[in-house]
Amino acid sequence: MITTRLTKQLGIKHPIIQAPMAFAAGGRLAVATSNAGGLGFIGGAYGDIDWITEQFDIAGNQRVGCGLITWVLKEKTDLLDQVIERNPAALFLSFGDPAPYIKAIKSANIPLICQIQTFRDARHAIDLGADIIVAQGAEAGGHGEKRTTFTLVPEVADYIAKHSPDTLLCAAGGIADGRGLAASLMLGADGVLIGSRFWAAEEALVHPKMWQAAIDANGDDTLRTSVVDVIRGYDWPDRYNARVLKNDFTDKWHKNIAGLKTNVEAEAVLWREALSVGDSKIANAFVGENAALIKDVKPAADIMSDIVTQAESLLKTEFN
Amino acid sequence: MITTRLTKQLGIKHPIIQAPMAFAAGGRLAVATSNAGGLGFIGGAYGDIDWITEQFDIAGNQRVGCGLITWVLKEKTDLLDQVIERNPAALFLSFGDPAPYIKAIKSANIPLICQIQTFRDARHAIDLGADIIVAQGAEAGGHGEKRTTFTLVPEVADYIAKHSPDTLLCAAGGIADGRGLAASLMLGADGVLIGSRFWAAEEALVHPKMWQAAIDANGDDTLRTSVVDVIRGYDWPDRYNARVLKNDFTDKWHKNIAGLKTNVEAEAVLWREALSVGDSKIANAFVGENAALIKDVKPAADIMSDIVTQAESLLKTEFN
Repeated sequence: MITTRLTKQLGIKHPIIQAPMAFAAGGRLAVATSNAGGLGFIGGAYGDIDWITEQFDIAGNQRVGCGLITWVLKEKTDLLDQVIERNPAALFLSFGDPAPYIKAIKSANIPLICQIQTFRDARHAIDLGADIIVAQGAEAGGHGEKRTTFTLVPEVADYIAKHSPDTLLCAAGGIADGRGLAASLMLGADGVLIGSRFWAAEEALVHPKMWQAAIDANGDDTLRTSVVDVIRGYDWPDRYNARVLKNDFTDKWHKNIAGLKTNVEAEAVLWREALSVGDSKIANAFVGENAALIKDVKPAADIMSDIVTQAESLLKTEFN
Repeated sequence: MITTRLTKQLGIKHPIIQAPMAFAAGGRLAVATSNAGGLGFIGGAYGDIDWITEQFDIAGNQRVGCGLITWVLKEKTDLLDQVIERNPAALFLSFGDPAPYIKAIKSANIPLICQIQTFRDARHAIDLGADIIVAQGAEAGGHGEKRTTFTLVPEVADYIAKHSPDTLLCAAGGIADGRGLAASLMLGADGVLIGSRFWAAEEALVHPKMWQAAIDANGDDTLRTSVVDVIRGYDWPDRYNARVLKNDFTDKWHKNIAGLKTNVEAEAVLWREALSVGDSKIANAFVGENAALIKDVKPAADIMSDIVTQAESLLKTEFN
């Protein structure tokens, strides 16, 4: 058992939160993570309320949270209230200013987790009263920015210690095993957020061939790029791009975004078709730089127990 | 005391190597680090043999190593032999293929440290027989690449465990205090390489105003860029660029390298003048993303004991 302020405050067994990954993290994964002693999240992402409702229904009465993209909330003005009605165990806001949504979330007594990618945004979210800060490094799969986990976590921890000692801190980006959990605790985090490793859980909504592509990859095989947003027609703010597995599609377009935009309609048909059949040469797997640490697909409960067991053992190491 | 395979193999007290930072790491810093129980390195960098000789003289008969840039060795064909003659405690090769230099170093019975930035290069250096691999993440100050410390270290550790268990591994990039040391050990490293924090040691060859700029900075204030190489006329391979503190100069030129090249003669006069007087608005401090963790300038021995004391304490934490 690894007990921290996070396990105590959230009433969970292990200091591990499963990332609300768009499309991959449905109700089944969220429930499996929560049942395994962490806190699972539905990836609310682009705000398809029918899908989100369905995933909450799948999760049943179990305790799961929901992740939402802040710039999407700005466009879909009913979304936050609709999600709050499902009484999530926590709300997880990323990629934009959380300020306009804090009041509604606090009034509903729902713990607020803010994911940030810079020190500046961390300070803003802490000062606004977020309950938990997730400091996400560039090594993470999916959307993010440039700062790295290894420096962002202690820097935010120092700010919290000085200005808001009751705020909790989770490390995110690069954590896939017990080494990452133990290292994050050493860096000053109260727990971790794990995406890619749970993306490769049996309960995740991912094509098995995409899993295989990640298992075959090493950490040099990912890149941060905007082409996956252009191809899907998502209007992400410039500062964010996504880490995915490199493939023929990124080789062709990553350095020629203008060319992709000119050809986007035809290319999008191919990319989406590839995604549906798991063709990893064209569609991109959304995994982090820790792809090399993903060696198999297994139930979320097994992933959880592997991570905790390894971290417990490492934290007992005597260096003498 | 933190004892690891690194301390035993190198016969040092603490598992901490001081990075051979170009210009900043002279004989005085190297000796101070070695005397404090780590292993200090002269930054041989661009291969000015007169300067290197002077720094070895300053170091006297103390045990210090020397760092060399591999692509420089290719151009300066006498350099490696000249440095080997000074009987360094270890040789530290970065930024290029070490293969052509291994025989000379091994024949002289000098421990070989290879710094790598990708898994691919790590595998190559391990297979060549490097004694110690330094896995350097993008958060590091000065030259490097894109992979991050948090994922590169465990990935290389796994390869070493499987294919070359006697090879040692140090983490580099982002480590400035005991948290970084403890986290690196959890990630599977046998020790750490520290640059920026020793850059802010009293013994480093740095203008005090540049130190102050780093102390005033937070971790969002650095970037990786090639402008500092263009302005100095160094012909670095495309894959490497340098992390420095942002300032007016990088604001102006980072996204306009072509424009800088057109104006490089006049701009270089200004930049070098600024460097000599410590004008951090024009000249750039070579520090990492852990700038926020640099809060003062003190003797290397104090930096060393702070780091070790904090790491020892963290490694004893009981999470219950």
